[in-house]
Amino acid sequence: MKKIGWIGTGVMGKSMCIHILKNGYPLSVYNRTKEKAGELCKEGAAWLATPGDVAAASDVTFTMVGEPADVEQVILGKGGVLARSRPGSVIVDMTTSEPSLARRIYEEAKGKSVSSLDAPVSGGDIGAREGTLAIMAGGDEEAFKRVLPVFELMGKNIAYMGGPGMGQHTKMSNQIVIAAAMVGVVESLLYARRAGLDLDAVIDIIGKGAASSWCLNQLGRRIVKGDFAPGFYIRHFVKDMGIALLEARRMKLSLPGLALANQFYIAAMAEGLETEGTQALYKVLDRLNRP
Amino acid sequence: MKKIGWIGTGVMGKSMCIHILKNGYPLSVYNRTKEKAGELCKEGAAWLATPGDVAAASDVTFTMVGEPADVEQVILGKGGVLARSRPGSVIVDMTTSEPSLARRIYEEAKGKSVSSLDAPVSGGDIGAREGTLAIMAGGDEEAFKRVLPVFELMGKNIAYMGGPGMGQHTKMSNQIVIAAAMVGVVESLLYARRAGLDLDAVIDIIGKGAASSWCLNQLGRRIVKGDFAPGFYIRHFVKDMGIALLEARRMKLSLPGLALANQFYIAAMAEGLETEGTQALYKVLDRLNRP
Repeated sequence: MKKIGWIGTGVMGKSMCIHILKNGYPLSVYNRTKEKAGELCKEGAAWLATPGDVAAASDVTFTMVGEPADVEQVILGKGGVLARSRPGSVIVDMTTSEPSLARRIYEEAKGKSVSSLDAPVSGGDIGAREGTLAIMAGGDEEAFKRVLPVFELMGKNIAYMGGPGMGQHTKMSNQIVIAAAMVGVVESLLYARRAGLDLDAVIDIIGKGAASSWCLNQLGRRIVKGDFAPGFYIRHFVKDMGIALLEARRMKLSLPGLALANQFYIAAMAEGLETEGTQALYKVLDRLNRP
Repeated sequence: MKKIGWIGTGVMGKSMCIHILKNGYPLSVYNRTKEKAGELCKEGAAWLATPGDVAAASDVTFTMVGEPADVEQVILGKGGVLARSRPGSVIVDMTTSEPSLARRIYEEAKGKSVSSLDAPVSGGDIGAREGTLAIMAGGDEEAFKRVLPVFELMGKNIAYMGGPGMGQHTKMSNQIVIAAAMVGVVESLLYARRAGLDLDAVIDIIGKGAASSWCLNQLGRRIVKGDFAPGFYIRHFVKDMGIALLEARRMKLSLPGLALANQFYIAAMAEGLETEGTQALYKVLDRLNRP
Protein backbone atom coordinates (compact mmCIF):
# COMPACT_ATOMS: atom_id res chain seq x y z
CA MET A 1 0.00 0.00 0.00
CA LYS A 2 2.29 2.74 -1.12
CA LYS A 3 0.32 5.03 -3.40
CA ILE A 4 -3.04 6.25 -2.19
CA GLY A 5 -5.85 7.80 -4.19
CA TRP A 6 -8.80 9.72 -2.74
CA ILE A 7 -12.03 10.76 -4.42
CA GLY A 8 -14.30 13.12 -2.52
CA THR A 9 -12.55 15.79 -0.48
CA GLY A 10 -15.52 17.33 1.32
CA VAL A 11 -15.55 18.10 5.04
CA MET A 12 -14.97 14.46 6.02
CA GLY A 13 -12.70 13.43 3.15
CA LYS A 14 -10.41 16.42 3.53
CA SER A 15 -9.73 15.77 7.21
CA MET A 16 -9.09 12.10 6.52
CA CYS A 17 -6.66 12.94 3.69
CA ILE A 18 -4.67 15.25 5.94
CA HIS A 19 -3.86 12.31 8.25
CA ILE A 20 -2.66 10.34 5.22
CA LEU A 21 -0.46 13.17 3.98
CA LYS A 22 0.98 13.84 7.43
CA ASN A 23 2.08 10.23 7.57
CA GLY A 24 4.09 10.53 4.40
CA TYR A 25 1.98 8.56 1.91
CA PRO A 26 1.95 9.84 -1.68
CA LEU A 27 -1.64 10.93 -2.32
CA SER A 28 -3.51 11.84 -5.49
CA VAL A 29 -6.98 13.37 -5.22
CA TYR A 30 -10.06 14.18 -7.23
CA ASN A 31 -13.18 16.11 -6.23
CA ARG A 32 -16.22 17.23 -8.22
CA THR A 33 -15.61 20.80 -7.02
CA LYS A 34 -11.87 21.28 -7.55
CA GLU A 35 -11.57 24.23 -5.14
CA LYS A 36 -12.36 21.99 -2.19
CA ALA A 37 -9.13 20.07 -2.84
CA GLY A 38 -7.03 23.26 -2.87
CA GLU A 39 -5.74 23.02 0.68
CA LEU A 40 -4.82 19.36 0.25
CA CYS A 41 -2.82 20.18 -2.91
CA LYS A 42 -0.93 22.84 -0.96
CA GLU A 43 -0.15 20.14 1.61
CA GLY A 44 1.36 17.95 -1.10
CA ALA A 45 -1.52 16.01 -2.71
CA ALA A 46 -1.47 15.65 -6.49
CA TRP A 47 -4.61 16.75 -8.30
CA LEU A 48 -5.72 14.42 -11.10
CA ALA A 49 -8.36 15.18 -13.71
CA THR A 50 -10.78 12.24 -13.23
CA PRO A 51 -11.63 9.49 -10.71
CA GLY A 52 -10.28 7.01 -13.24
CA ASP A 53 -6.93 8.81 -13.36
CA VAL A 54 -6.71 8.62 -9.56
CA ALA A 55 -7.45 4.88 -9.58
CA ALA A 56 -4.89 4.25 -12.32
CA ALA A 57 -2.20 5.93 -10.21
CA SER A 58 -3.01 4.20 -6.91
CA ASP A 59 -2.56 0.94 -4.99
CA VAL A 60 -5.62 1.75 -2.92
CA THR A 61 -8.37 4.16 -3.95
CA PHE A 62 -10.73 5.59 -1.37
CA THR A 63 -14.09 7.11 -2.21
CA MET A 64 -16.00 9.39 0.17
CA VAL A 65 -18.80 10.94 -1.85
CA GLY A 66 -22.48 11.85 -1.31
CA GLU A 67 -25.22 9.44 -2.29
CA PRO A 68 -25.23 5.80 -3.41
CA ALA A 69 -25.84 7.11 -6.96
CA ASP A 70 -22.55 9.04 -6.73
CA VAL A 71 -20.75 5.93 -5.47
CA GLU A 72 -22.14 3.93 -8.36
CA GLN A 73 -21.13 6.50 -10.95
CA VAL A 74 -17.66 7.18 -9.57
CA ILE A 75 -16.74 3.51 -9.07
CA LEU A 76 -18.74 1.59 -11.67
CA GLY A 77 -19.28 4.34 -14.28
CA LYS A 78 -17.58 4.41 -17.68
CA GLY A 79 -13.90 5.31 -17.28
CA GLY A 80 -14.44 5.35 -13.51
CA VAL A 81 -12.46 3.89 -10.63
CA LEU A 82 -13.00 0.22 -11.35
CA ALA A 83 -12.45 0.58 -15.10
CA ARG A 84 -9.00 2.04 -14.45
CA SER A 85 -7.97 0.08 -11.34
CA ARG A 86 -4.94 -2.14 -11.65
CA PRO A 87 -5.20 -5.85 -10.81
CA GLY A 88 -4.21 -6.37 -7.17
CA SER A 89 -5.28 -2.90 -6.12
CA VAL A 90 -8.04 -2.16 -3.60
CA ILE A 91 -11.10 0.08 -3.82
CA VAL A 92 -12.42 1.31 -0.45
CA ASP A 93 -15.77 3.06 -0.39
CA MET A 94 -16.12 4.99 2.87
CA THR A 95 -19.38 6.68 1.89
CA THR A 96 -22.43 5.55 3.86
CA SER A 97 -24.17 3.73 1.01
CA GLU A 98 -26.29 0.73 0.13
CA PRO A 99 -25.11 -2.73 1.27
CA SER A 100 -26.44 -4.17 -1.99
CA LEU A 101 -24.37 -1.70 -4.02
CA ALA A 102 -21.31 -2.68 -1.97
CA ARG A 103 -21.92 -6.30 -2.94
CA ARG A 104 -22.26 -5.37 -6.62
CA ILE A 105 -19.01 -3.40 -6.55
CA TYR A 106 -17.29 -6.32 -4.83
CA GLU A 107 -18.45 -8.79 -7.49
CA GLU A 108 -17.54 -6.60 -10.44
CA ALA A 109 -14.16 -5.78 -8.90
CA LYS A 110 -13.46 -9.45 -8.28
CA GLY A 111 -13.96 -10.12 -11.98
CA LYS A 112 -11.03 -7.76 -12.64
CA SER A 113 -8.82 -9.11 -9.83
CA VAL A 114 -9.43 -5.95 -7.85
CA SER A 115 -10.40 -6.08 -4.16
CA SER A 116 -13.16 -3.98 -2.73
CA LEU A 117 -14.11 -2.93 0.79
CA ASP A 118 -17.13 -1.06 2.09
CA ALA A 119 -15.93 0.91 5.10
CA PRO A 120 -18.36 3.59 6.27
CA VAL A 121 -17.46 5.61 9.33
CA SER A 122 -19.11 7.19 12.29
CA GLY A 123 -17.81 10.04 14.41
CA GLY A 124 -18.59 13.02 12.20
CA ASP A 125 -16.41 15.98 11.29
CA ILE A 126 -14.74 16.04 14.71
CA GLY A 127 -13.86 12.35 14.54
CA ALA A 128 -12.43 12.86 11.06
CA ARG A 129 -10.35 15.84 12.17
CA GLU A 130 -9.04 14.13 15.27
CA GLY A 131 -8.47 10.75 13.63
CA THR A 132 -10.87 9.05 16.04
CA LEU A 133 -13.50 7.75 13.61
CA ALA A 134 -15.17 4.39 14.03
CA ILE A 135 -14.62 2.40 10.84
CA MET A 136 -16.78 -0.66 10.09
CA ALA A 137 -15.54 -2.68 7.14
CA GLY A 138 -16.95 -5.38 4.89
CA GLY A 139 -15.23 -7.38 2.12
CA ASP A 140 -12.37 -9.87 2.11
CA GLU A 141 -10.42 -9.96 5.35
CA GLU A 142 -7.15 -10.15 3.46
CA ALA A 143 -7.89 -6.82 1.74
CA PHE A 144 -8.99 -5.36 5.07
CA LYS A 145 -5.65 -6.29 6.61
CA ARG A 146 -3.75 -4.69 3.76
CA VAL A 147 -5.66 -1.41 4.17
CA LEU A 148 -5.68 -1.48 8.00
CA PRO A 149 -2.51 0.64 8.42
CA VAL A 150 -4.23 3.43 6.49
CA PHE A 151 -7.50 3.03 8.43
CA GLU A 152 -5.45 3.37 11.61
CA LEU A 153 -4.40 6.85 10.56
CA MET A 154 -8.05 7.97 10.48
CA GLY A 155 -9.81 5.96 13.13
CA LYS A 156 -9.66 4.51 16.59
CA ASN A 157 -12.36 1.82 16.61
CA ILE A 158 -11.82 -0.21 13.48
CA ALA A 159 -13.67 -3.46 12.93
CA TYR A 160 -13.84 -6.09 10.22
CA MET A 161 -17.51 -7.06 10.14
CA GLY A 162 -17.61 -9.76 7.45
CA GLY A 163 -18.13 -10.09 3.72
CA PRO A 164 -19.08 -7.35 1.25
CA GLY A 165 -21.87 -5.08 2.46
CA MET A 166 -21.35 -5.93 6.12
CA GLY A 167 -19.64 -2.61 6.82
CA GLN A 168 -22.66 -0.82 5.41
CA HIS A 169 -25.08 -3.04 7.32
CA THR A 170 -23.22 -2.22 10.55
CA LYS A 171 -23.49 1.49 9.80
CA MET A 172 -27.23 1.04 9.24
CA SER A 173 -27.49 -0.69 12.62
CA ASN A 174 -25.78 2.37 14.10
CA GLN A 175 -28.18 4.80 12.44
CA ILE A 176 -31.26 2.77 13.47
CA VAL A 177 -30.23 3.06 17.12
CA ILE A 178 -29.68 6.80 16.78
CA ALA A 179 -32.95 7.53 14.93
CA ALA A 180 -35.18 6.23 17.71
CA ALA A 181 -32.86 7.53 20.44
CA MET A 182 -33.18 11.06 19.07
CA VAL A 183 -36.98 10.83 19.16
CA GLY A 184 -36.77 9.80 22.80
CA VAL A 185 -34.33 12.58 23.73
CA VAL A 186 -36.42 15.23 22.00
CA GLU A 187 -39.74 14.06 23.45
CA SER A 188 -38.21 13.83 26.91
CA LEU A 189 -36.86 17.39 26.78
CA LEU A 190 -40.16 18.69 25.39
CA TYR A 191 -41.98 17.00 28.26
CA ALA A 192 -39.51 18.32 30.84
CA ARG A 193 -39.72 21.86 29.50
CA ARG A 194 -43.52 21.78 29.46
CA ALA A 195 -43.49 20.48 33.04
CA GLY A 196 -41.37 23.45 34.06
CA LEU A 197 -38.19 21.55 34.87
CA ASP A 198 -34.67 22.90 34.45
CA LEU A 199 -33.48 20.93 31.43
CA ASP A 200 -29.81 20.90 32.32
CA ALA A 201 -30.68 19.63 35.79
CA VAL A 202 -32.75 16.87 34.16
CA ILE A 203 -29.85 15.79 31.94
CA ASP A 204 -27.50 15.98 34.94
CA ILE A 205 -29.52 13.36 36.76
CA ILE A 206 -31.04 11.12 34.07
CA GLY A 207 -27.92 11.28 31.88
CA LYS A 208 -26.01 9.02 34.27
CA GLY A 209 -28.33 6.01 34.57
CA ALA A 210 -30.46 3.77 32.38
CA ALA A 211 -31.45 6.72 30.16
CA SER A 212 -27.85 7.73 29.50
CA SER A 213 -26.69 7.94 25.92
CA TRP A 214 -24.37 9.93 23.72
CA CYS A 215 -27.45 11.45 22.09
CA LEU A 216 -28.83 12.68 25.41
CA ASN A 217 -25.56 13.84 26.93
CA GLN A 218 -24.14 15.46 23.80
CA LEU A 219 -27.03 16.44 21.55
CA GLY A 220 -29.54 16.91 24.38
CA ARG A 221 -27.19 19.50 25.91
CA ARG A 222 -27.00 21.32 22.57
CA ILE A 223 -30.80 21.40 22.33
CA VAL A 224 -30.96 22.98 25.79
CA LYS A 225 -28.48 25.66 24.66
CA GLY A 226 -30.47 26.24 21.46
CA ASP A 227 -27.45 25.06 19.46
CA PHE A 228 -28.67 23.36 16.31
CA ALA A 229 -25.41 23.62 14.34
CA PRO A 230 -24.58 20.44 12.46
CA GLY A 231 -22.34 17.79 13.87
CA PHE A 232 -24.20 15.62 11.40
CA TYR A 233 -26.55 17.12 8.80
CA ILE A 234 -30.23 16.20 8.87
CA ARG A 235 -29.97 15.87 5.07
CA HIS A 236 -27.39 13.10 5.41
CA PHE A 237 -29.30 11.37 8.18
CA VAL A 238 -32.42 11.27 6.00
CA LYS A 239 -30.33 9.69 3.25
CA ASP A 240 -29.02 7.07 5.69
CA MET A 241 -32.46 6.24 7.09
CA GLY A 242 -33.73 5.87 3.53
CA ILE A 243 -31.03 3.29 2.84
CA ALA A 244 -31.79 1.42 6.07
CA LEU A 245 -35.52 1.32 5.32
CA LEU A 246 -34.85 0.17 1.74
CA GLU A 247 -32.55 -2.62 2.89
CA ALA A 248 -34.96 -3.62 5.64
CA ARG A 249 -37.75 -3.81 3.07
CA ARG A 250 -35.55 -5.98 0.85
CA MET A 251 -35.07 -8.29 3.84
CA LYS A 252 -38.85 -8.14 4.58
CA LEU A 253 -38.15 -6.52 7.93
CA SER A 254 -40.66 -4.11 9.44
CA LEU A 255 -39.07 -1.38 11.58
CA PRO A 256 -41.88 0.89 12.81
CA GLY A 257 -39.71 2.99 15.13
CA LEU A 258 -37.28 3.80 12.35
CA ALA A 259 -40.17 4.61 10.01
CA LEU A 260 -41.65 7.06 12.52
CA ALA A 261 -38.32 8.79 13.16
CA ASN A 262 -37.77 9.00 9.41
CA GLN A 263 -41.11 10.72 8.91
CA PHE A 264 -40.26 13.37 11.51
CA TYR A 265 -36.91 13.97 9.87
CA ILE A 266 -38.65 14.34 6.53
CA ALA A 267 -40.83 16.96 8.23
CA ALA A 268 -37.59 18.63 9.31
CA MET A 269 -36.56 18.76 5.64
CA ALA A 270 -39.93 20.32 4.84
CA GLU A 271 -39.18 22.99 7.44
CA GLY A 272 -35.89 23.80 5.74
CA LEU A 273 -33.67 22.20 8.37
CA GLU A 274 -31.60 20.10 5.91
CA THR A 275 -28.28 21.55 6.94
CA GLU A 276 -28.94 21.77 10.65
CA GLY A 277 -27.74 19.05 13.01
CA THR A 278 -29.81 15.96 13.80
CA GLN A 279 -30.73 17.54 17.16
CA ALA A 280 -32.91 20.05 15.25
CA LEU A 281 -35.53 17.29 15.34
CA TYR A 282 -36.48 19.16 18.50
CA LYS A 283 -37.87 21.99 16.38
CA VAL A 284 -40.22 19.64 14.52
CA LEU A 285 -41.78 18.15 17.63
CA ASP A 286 -41.80 21.52 19.36
CA ARG A 287 -43.77 23.02 16.47
CA LEU A 288 -46.14 20.05 16.48
CA ASN A 289 -47.02 21.04 20.04
CA ARG A 290 -47.54 24.76 19.68
CA PRO A 291 -50.76 26.75 19.29
CA MET B 1 -34.85 12.72 61.38
CA LYS B 2 -34.48 10.09 64.00
CA LYS B 3 -37.35 7.65 63.59
CA ILE B 4 -38.00 6.27 60.15
CA GLY B 5 -41.09 4.52 58.84
CA TRP B 6 -41.29 2.50 55.65
CA ILE B 7 -44.36 1.25 53.81
CA GLY B 8 -43.80 -1.16 50.96
CA THR B 9 -41.03 -3.68 51.46
CA GLY B 10 -40.96 -5.33 48.04
CA VAL B 11 -37.76 -5.98 46.10
CA MET B 12 -36.81 -2.29 45.96
CA GLY B 13 -38.10 -1.22 49.36
CA LYS B 14 -36.48 -4.08 51.20
CA SER B 15 -33.01 -3.31 49.85
CA MET B 16 -33.43 0.38 50.64
CA CYS B 17 -34.53 -0.42 54.20
CA ILE B 18 -31.45 -2.55 54.78
CA HIS B 19 -29.22 0.49 54.19
CA ILE B 20 -31.28 2.43 56.72
CA LEU B 21 -31.04 -0.32 59.34
CA LYS B 22 -27.31 -0.79 58.77
CA ASN B 23 -26.81 2.87 59.53
CA GLY B 24 -28.46 2.59 62.89
CA TYR B 25 -31.76 4.34 62.34
CA PRO B 26 -34.79 2.98 64.23
CA LEU B 27 -37.15 1.67 61.55
CA SER B 28 -40.77 0.59 61.64
CA VAL B 29 -42.26 -1.11 58.60
CA TYR B 30 -45.55 -2.16 57.05
CA ASN B 31 -46.21 -4.20 53.94
CA ARG B 32 -49.44 -5.54 52.42
CA THR B 33 -47.91 -9.03 52.42
CA LYS B 34 -46.41 -9.35 55.89
CA GLU B 35 -44.07 -12.21 54.96
CA LYS B 36 -42.07 -9.91 52.69
CA ALA B 37 -41.03 -7.85 55.72
CA GLY B 38 -39.79 -10.91 57.63
CA GLU B 39 -36.11 -10.51 56.83
CA LEU B 40 -36.19 -6.83 57.78
CA CYS B 41 -37.79 -7.65 61.13
CA LYS B 42 -35.01 -10.14 61.78
CA GLU B 43 -32.54 -7.32 61.04
CA GLY B 44 -34.18 -5.14 63.68
CA ALA B 45 -37.12 -3.40 62.02
CA ALA B 46 -40.36 -3.15 64.03
CA TRP B 47 -43.49 -4.46 62.33
CA LEU B 48 -46.56 -2.24 62.79
CA ALA B 49 -50.11 -3.22 61.94
CA THR B 50 -51.13 -0.41 59.54
CA PRO B 51 -49.55 2.35 57.43
CA GLY B 52 -51.13 4.84 59.81
CA ASP B 53 -49.40 3.22 62.78
CA VAL B 54 -46.07 3.51 60.97
CA ALA B 55 -46.66 7.20 60.24
CA ALA B 56 -47.70 7.91 63.84
CA ALA B 57 -44.40 6.42 65.06
CA SER B 58 -42.09 8.20 62.59
CA ASP B 59 -40.39 11.51 61.87
CA VAL B 60 -40.20 10.61 58.20
CA THR B 61 -42.39 8.03 56.49
CA PHE B 62 -41.35 6.56 53.17
CA THR B 63 -43.75 4.83 50.78
CA MET B 64 -42.59 2.54 47.99
CA VAL B 65 -45.68 0.78 46.71
CA GLY B 66 -47.11 -0.29 43.35
CA GLU B 67 -49.48 1.95 41.44
CA PRO B 68 -50.65 5.54 41.93
CA ALA B 69 -53.92 4.11 43.29
CA ASP B 70 -51.93 2.36 46.03
CA VAL B 71 -50.06 5.58 46.82
CA GLU B 72 -53.35 7.43 47.09
CA GLN B 73 -54.89 4.84 49.38
CA VAL B 74 -51.88 4.39 51.64
CA ILE B 75 -51.15 8.10 52.05
CA LEU B 76 -54.51 9.84 51.65
CA GLY B 77 -56.87 7.00 52.62
CA LYS B 78 -58.86 6.95 55.83
CA GLY B 79 -56.58 6.27 58.79
CA GLY B 80 -53.64 6.27 56.40
CA VAL B 81 -50.22 7.90 56.52
CA LEU B 82 -51.31 11.52 56.33
CA ALA B 83 -54.19 11.10 58.76
CA ARG B 84 -51.75 9.82 61.41
CA SER B 85 -48.68 11.92 60.59
CA ARG B 86 -47.47 14.29 63.28
CA PRO B 87 -47.09 18.00 62.50
CA GLY B 88 -43.51 18.68 61.41
CA SER B 89 -42.99 15.19 60.05
CA VAL B 90 -42.24 14.37 56.39
CA ILE B 91 -43.90 11.96 53.98
CA VAL B 92 -41.67 10.77 51.13
CA ASP B 93 -43.27 8.84 48.30
CA MET B 94 -40.58 6.99 46.33
CA THR B 95 -43.03 5.09 44.14
CA THR B 96 -43.01 6.13 40.48
CA SER B 97 -46.42 7.76 40.44
CA GLU B 98 -48.44 10.64 39.00
CA PRO B 99 -47.04 14.18 39.32
CA SER B 100 -50.57 15.47 39.84
CA LEU B 101 -51.10 13.05 42.74
CA ALA B 102 -47.80 14.24 44.24
CA ARG B 103 -49.12 17.80 44.13
CA ARG B 104 -52.39 16.74 45.80
CA ILE B 105 -50.55 14.96 48.58
CA TYR B 106 -48.32 18.01 49.05
CA GLU B 107 -51.32 20.34 49.38
CA GLU B 108 -53.24 18.11 51.75
CA ALA B 109 -50.14 17.52 53.86
CA LYS B 110 -49.42 21.24 54.01
CA GLY B 111 -52.86 21.78 55.51
CA LYS B 112 -51.78 19.56 58.41
CA SER B 113 -48.31 21.09 58.80
CA VAL B 114 -46.78 17.95 57.33
CA SER B 115 -44.13 18.14 54.57
CA SER B 116 -44.26 15.94 51.52
CA LEU B 117 -41.70 14.94 48.91
CA ASP B 118 -42.08 12.95 45.72
CA ALA B 119 -38.80 11.13 45.20
CA PRO B 120 -38.92 8.36 42.63
CA VAL B 121 -35.74 6.49 41.84
CA SER B 122 -33.99 4.91 38.93
CA GLY B 123 -31.37 2.19 39.00
CA GLY B 124 -33.51 -0.88 39.59
CA ASP B 125 -32.99 -3.73 42.00
CA ILE B 126 -29.20 -3.63 41.64
CA GLY B 127 -29.07 0.10 42.39
CA ALA B 128 -31.27 -0.43 45.43
CA ARG B 129 -29.09 -3.27 46.70
CA GLU B 130 -25.84 -1.40 46.15
CA GLY B 131 -27.14 1.95 47.39
CA THR B 132 -26.42 3.59 44.05
CA LEU B 133 -29.92 4.67 43.03
CA ALA B 134 -30.60 7.96 41.30
CA ILE B 135 -33.15 9.88 43.38
CA MET B 136 -35.05 12.79 41.86
CA ALA B 137 -37.04 14.79 44.37
CA GLY B 138 -39.82 17.37 44.27
CA GLY B 139 -41.37 19.36 47.12
CA ASP B 140 -40.01 22.00 49.48
CA GLU B 141 -36.25 22.31 49.45
CA GLU B 142 -36.17 22.61 53.22
CA ALA B 143 -37.85 19.19 53.58
CA PHE B 144 -35.50 17.77 50.94
CA LYS B 145 -32.50 18.92 52.95
CA ARG B 146 -33.86 17.33 56.09
CA VAL B 147 -34.33 13.96 54.36
CA LEU B 148 -31.09 14.15 52.35
CA PRO B 149 -28.96 12.21 54.89
CA VAL B 150 -31.37 9.27 54.51
CA PHE B 151 -31.44 9.57 50.70
CA GLU B 152 -27.65 9.42 50.79
CA LEU B 153 -27.82 5.96 52.33
CA MET B 154 -29.75 4.66 49.32
CA GLY B 155 -28.49 6.65 46.36
CA LYS B 156 -25.54 8.21 44.63
CA ASN B 157 -27.08 10.75 42.26
CA ILE B 158 -29.57 12.70 44.30
CA ALA B 159 -31.16 15.85 42.92
CA TYR B 160 -33.69 18.37 44.13
CA MET B 161 -35.71 19.15 41.01
CA GLY B 162 -38.20 21.78 42.24
CA GLY B 163 -41.67 21.97 43.75
CA PRO B 164 -44.13 19.12 44.31
CA GLY B 165 -44.44 16.73 41.36
CA MET B 166 -41.09 17.72 39.87
CA GLY B 167 -39.44 14.51 41.05
CA GLN B 168 -42.13 12.50 39.27
CA HIS B 169 -41.86 14.67 36.15
CA THR B 170 -38.11 14.03 36.08
CA LYS B 171 -38.69 10.29 36.34
CA MET B 172 -41.15 10.53 33.45
CA SER B 173 -38.48 12.35 31.40
CA ASN B 174 -36.18 9.42 32.19
CA GLN B 175 -38.73 6.82 31.08
CA ILE B 176 -39.55 8.72 27.87
CA VAL B 177 -35.88 8.59 26.83
CA ILE B 178 -35.69 4.88 27.58
CA ALA B 179 -38.92 3.92 25.79
CA ALA B 180 -37.77 5.18 22.41
CA ALA B 181 -34.18 4.09 23.00
CA MET B 182 -35.34 0.50 23.54
CA VAL B 183 -37.25 0.54 20.25
CA GLY B 184 -34.06 1.69 18.51
CA VAL B 185 -31.87 -0.94 20.18
CA VAL B 186 -34.30 -3.74 19.39
CA GLU B 187 -34.84 -2.70 15.77
CA SER B 188 -31.11 -2.29 15.26
CA LEU B 189 -30.34 -5.77 16.58
CA LEU B 190 -33.17 -7.28 14.52
CA TYR B 191 -31.75 -5.60 11.44
CA ALA B 192 -28.20 -6.71 12.22
CA ARG B 193 -29.27 -10.30 12.85
CA ARG B 194 -31.28 -10.42 9.64
CA ALA B 195 -28.29 -9.00 7.75
CA GLY B 196 -26.16 -11.84 9.10
CA LEU B 197 -23.92 -9.75 11.34
CA ASP B 198 -22.37 -10.94 14.59
CA LEU B 199 -24.43 -8.99 17.11
CA ASP B 200 -21.75 -8.74 19.78
CA ALA B 201 -19.32 -7.42 17.19
CA VAL B 202 -21.94 -4.82 16.19
CA ILE B 203 -22.38 -3.65 19.80
CA ASP B 204 -18.58 -3.64 20.23
CA ILE B 205 -18.20 -1.07 17.47
CA ILE B 206 -21.41 1.00 17.53
CA GLY B 207 -21.64 0.95 21.33
CA LYS B 208 -18.72 3.36 21.64
CA GLY B 209 -19.82 6.26 19.43
CA ALA B 210 -22.92 8.33 18.70
CA ALA B 211 -25.18 5.26 19.10
CA SER B 212 -23.81 4.41 22.54
CA SER B 213 -26.25 4.15 25.40
CA TRP B 214 -26.84 2.24 28.59
CA CYS B 215 -29.76 0.51 26.85
CA LEU B 216 -27.56 -0.69 23.99
CA ASN B 217 -24.51 -1.64 26.01
CA GLN B 218 -26.37 -3.28 28.91
CA LEU B 219 -29.75 -4.47 27.64
CA GLY B 220 -28.58 -4.98 24.05
CA ARG B 221 -25.94 -7.40 25.32
CA ARG B 222 -28.59 -9.30 27.29
CA ILE B 223 -30.77 -9.59 24.17
CA VAL B 224 -27.82 -11.07 22.28
CA LYS B 225 -27.36 -13.65 25.05
CA GLY B 226 -31.08 -14.43 25.04
CA ASP B 227 -31.28 -13.16 28.63
CA PHE B 228 -34.70 -11.61 29.19
CA ALA B 229 -34.66 -11.76 32.99
CA PRO B 230 -35.98 -8.61 34.59
CA GLY B 231 -33.77 -5.78 35.67
CA PHE B 232 -36.96 -3.78 35.32
CA TYR B 233 -40.33 -5.49 34.74
CA ILE B 234 -42.24 -4.76 31.55
CA ARG B 235 -45.36 -4.53 33.73
CA HIS B 236 -43.87 -1.62 35.68
CA PHE B 237 -42.60 0.07 32.56
CA VAL B 238 -46.08 -0.04 31.03
CA LYS B 239 -47.42 1.58 34.21
CA ASP B 240 -44.80 4.33 33.96
CA MET B 241 -45.44 5.01 30.28
CA GLY B 242 -49.15 5.21 31.05
CA ILE B 243 -48.46 7.91 33.63
CA ALA B 244 -46.21 9.83 31.24
CA LEU B 245 -48.80 9.70 28.46
CA LEU B 246 -51.55 10.78 30.84
CA GLU B 247 -49.53 13.73 32.14
CA ALA B 248 -48.49 14.67 28.61
CA ARG B 249 -52.13 14.66 27.56
CA ARG B 250 -53.01 16.88 30.53
CA MET B 251 -50.32 19.29 29.31
CA LYS B 252 -51.63 18.97 25.71
CA LEU B 253 -48.34 17.48 24.62
CA SER B 254 -48.23 14.97 21.75
CA LEU B 255 -45.43 12.40 22.07
CA PRO B 256 -45.72 10.01 19.11
CA GLY B 257 -42.50 8.10 19.81
CA LEU B 258 -43.57 7.33 23.36
CA ALA B 259 -47.02 6.31 22.14
CA LEU B 260 -45.52 3.86 19.65
CA ALA B 261 -43.16 2.33 22.19
CA ASN B 262 -46.06 2.05 24.62
CA GLN B 263 -48.14 0.13 22.08
CA PHE B 264 -45.34 -2.37 21.53
CA TYR B 265 -44.95 -2.86 25.26
CA ILE B 266 -48.70 -3.42 25.53
CA ALA B 267 -48.25 -6.09 22.86
CA ALA B 268 -45.54 -7.55 25.11
CA MET B 269 -48.12 -7.75 27.91
CA ALA B 270 -50.48 -9.50 25.50
CA GLU B 271 -47.74 -12.03 24.85
CA GLY B 272 -47.43 -12.72 28.57
CA LEU B 273 -44.12 -10.95 29.06
CA GLU B 274 -45.25 -8.81 32.04
CA THR B 275 -42.57 -10.07 34.37
CA GLU B 276 -39.74 -10.20 31.86
CA GLY B 277 -37.25 -7.35 31.57
CA THR B 278 -37.82 -4.36 29.30
CA GLN B 279 -35.36 -5.89 26.82
CA ALA B 280 -37.98 -8.56 26.04
CA LEU B 281 -39.42 -5.94 23.67
CA TYR B 282 -37.11 -7.77 21.28
CA LYS B 283 -39.50 -10.73 21.29
CA VAL B 284 -42.43 -8.57 20.19
CA LEU B 285 -40.66 -7.07 17.19
CA ASP B 286 -39.03 -10.37 16.36
CA ARG B 287 -42.43 -12.06 16.23
CA LEU B 288 -43.80 -9.21 14.11
CA ASN B 289 -41.17 -10.15 11.55
CA ARG B 290 -41.54 -13.88 11.39
CA PRO B 291 -43.44 -16.05 8.91
